[in-house]
Amino acid sequence: MNIGVDIGGMSVKAGIVDDYGKIIYKKAIPTGASRKSYEIVKDIINLITELISSPHAKNNTISSIGIGIPGAFDQSEGKIIECGNINLKNIPLTYEIKKYTDIPVYLNNDANCAALAEYIYCNDKPDCFIAVTLGTGIGGGIILDGRILSGINGFAGEIGHMVISESGNHCNCGRDGCWETYASVTALINQTKEAILANPQSLMNTLINGELKNTNGKTAFDAAKQGDAIAISVVEKYIHYISVGIVNLINIFRPNVIAIGGAISKEGDFLLNPIINYCNKKVYASSTSENKTKLTTTKLGNDAGIIGASLLYRSIGE
Amino acid sequence: MNIGVDIGGMSVKAGIVDDYGKIIYKKAIPTGASRKSYEIVKDIINLITELISSPHAKNNTISSIGIGIPGAFDQSEGKIIECGNINLKNIPLTYEIKKYTDIPVYLNNDANCAALAEYIYCNDKPDCFIAVTLGTGIGGGIILDGRILSGINGFAGEIGHMVISESGNHCNCGRDGCWETYASVTALINQTKEAILANPQSLMNTLINGELKNTNGKTAFDAAKQGDAIAISVVEKYIHYISVGIVNLINIFRPNVIAIGGAISKEGDFLLNPIINYCNKKVYASSTSENKTKLTTTKLGNDAGIIGASLLYRSIGE
Repeated sequence: MNIGVDIGGMSVKAGIVDDYGKIIYKKAIPTGASRKSYEIVKDIINLITELISSPHAKNNTISSIGIGIPGAFDQSEGKIIECGNINLKNIPLTYEIKKYTDIPVYLNNDANCAALAEYIYCNDKPDCFIAVTLGTGIGGGIILDGRILSGINGFAGEIGHMVISESGNHCNCGRDGCWETYASVTALINQTKEAILANPQSLMNTLINGELKNTNGKTAFDAAKQGDAIAISVVEKYIHYISVGIVNLINIFRPNVIAIGGAISKEGDFLLNPIINYCNKKVYASSTSENKTKLTTTKLGNDAGIIGASLLYRSIGE
Repeated sequence: MNIGVDIGGMSVKAGIVDDYGKIIYKKAIPTGASRKSYEIVKDIINLITELISSPHAKNNTISSIGIGIPGAFDQSEGKIIECGNINLKNIPLTYEIKKYTDIPVYLNNDANCAALAEYIYCNDKPDCFIAVTLGTGIGGGIILDGRILSGINGFAGEIGHMVISESGNHCNCGRDGCWETYASVTALINQTKEAILANPQSLMNTLINGELKNTNGKTAFDAAKQGDAIAISVVEKYIHYISVGIVNLINIFRPNVIAIGGAISKEGDFLLNPIINYCNKKVYASSTSENKTKLTTTKLGNDAGIIGASLLYRSIGE
């Protein structure tokens, strides 16, 4: 059994996870992201030691502790370099935890952890697996031969900041035309609002009760399913943007599997089938390839972070 | 010692290469790309057997034969799936060669082989190394932990077909806005011609003797070095396009090293320094990363294909 810890801006979630990736017990605490670093670290350590000594672990030895953070890290030093909006910059978290336990501690990026968990839940353990999460931005994790592609300081997999439209929409990262400015859920909501403003007769306007602030990632999809022409064009354009980035990833990696996650993936085949059709037409030399990249949706939801963190020992090795 | 074979549209080059990647002896024959498949295969086998029995290999056992092809392959069956403009589609080349020798035979994509060779010549053997070749198109090879990222049927690394300008220039692959339509040497020549047509007073027009057909990949760079303002703007725009794709690759892989190759890489620091400056400003969260991706030029030139093919046994393993 292993412990997986998923450090997020709102909460720190931790779980005791068996060797097959099944959560036996889990607990969450508020992060208190803007508190003093030592206060945040102390709560994380308390949470971990509580799990180690909990009845759920009593009859089993915890073999490793894995931690996912929304940021960059130095694996060799076990140090967090930066951690999103959480006040844990330049904190030697592994070192601090090792003061309290001899159990090995592994650190990685949270999106990489989630991808690792999704990979473990693939029956056929593909040589190359990519998880794409469409959310506020676009996150990604790349698993090669069962190991996370971490890159320098865990920065690999920032696929949302792949420019697909040079000199296009400005992105917070400082570049123009990043994929996430077109294909994240944030982008979809913006595209939906623009379409409603330009076409107040659209069913979408009814669904939001005429209040733009009620627009969410489902608005266009819900109206499109009811045949609203404006909504259909919003969804088609949005799926086009997703597909442009997906085909880029296929041409770069030619992976066995790409799994699309985030709340939007609940749209299922309504989302997936047009992407698959686009890929069949647009992937480089796809007509000559007998084995195409399989596109699917992710399986694990919010638990992926805990599960993946608990499995880090497999990916990183000793 | 190993034999490396680089199958190209014009010639088949083969060499005896020592375990350090040094070519001991090499020979080239015309490919005769449109001949019957069995004639092309026969010549390749004759070339290989000639090398095996040559005086240069006499005192040494050839341990493996590696073959690079400009196309896709099935490693498990040792079969070429498609091979650019060469009539070797669906040919079980490994099987054919094994009729004549017991030496293990490895097959891979030629751009991957060239990248492997460049990697071997890196002193520090980076965990993640990417070779980018700017030529007629843009080719790439990705080396992770000393092994080629092949992808399904060797199709990984088609980085030239990463869209950077959705709904931009049409590409032969069927998509719009592929990187190679902006940053290949072909693209540079088109951009140079357009600038000359619009600005006949440019020094570039003098350098080509007023004949657009004399334009090549050096025209804009040569005139820019002499201070021609129009040429400077062509070069700046071209370097911008290269940089957009390079930063995409850094954000996806955060590799230790990216090496830029192709004839244009002879421009050296004049090409490389502005790309490095762009990356320093534009890479995702670069300010928080202590270790940046190192950008350099390739070292091996045309021999990279032979050397890399000869080293395939290292990358693929038994």
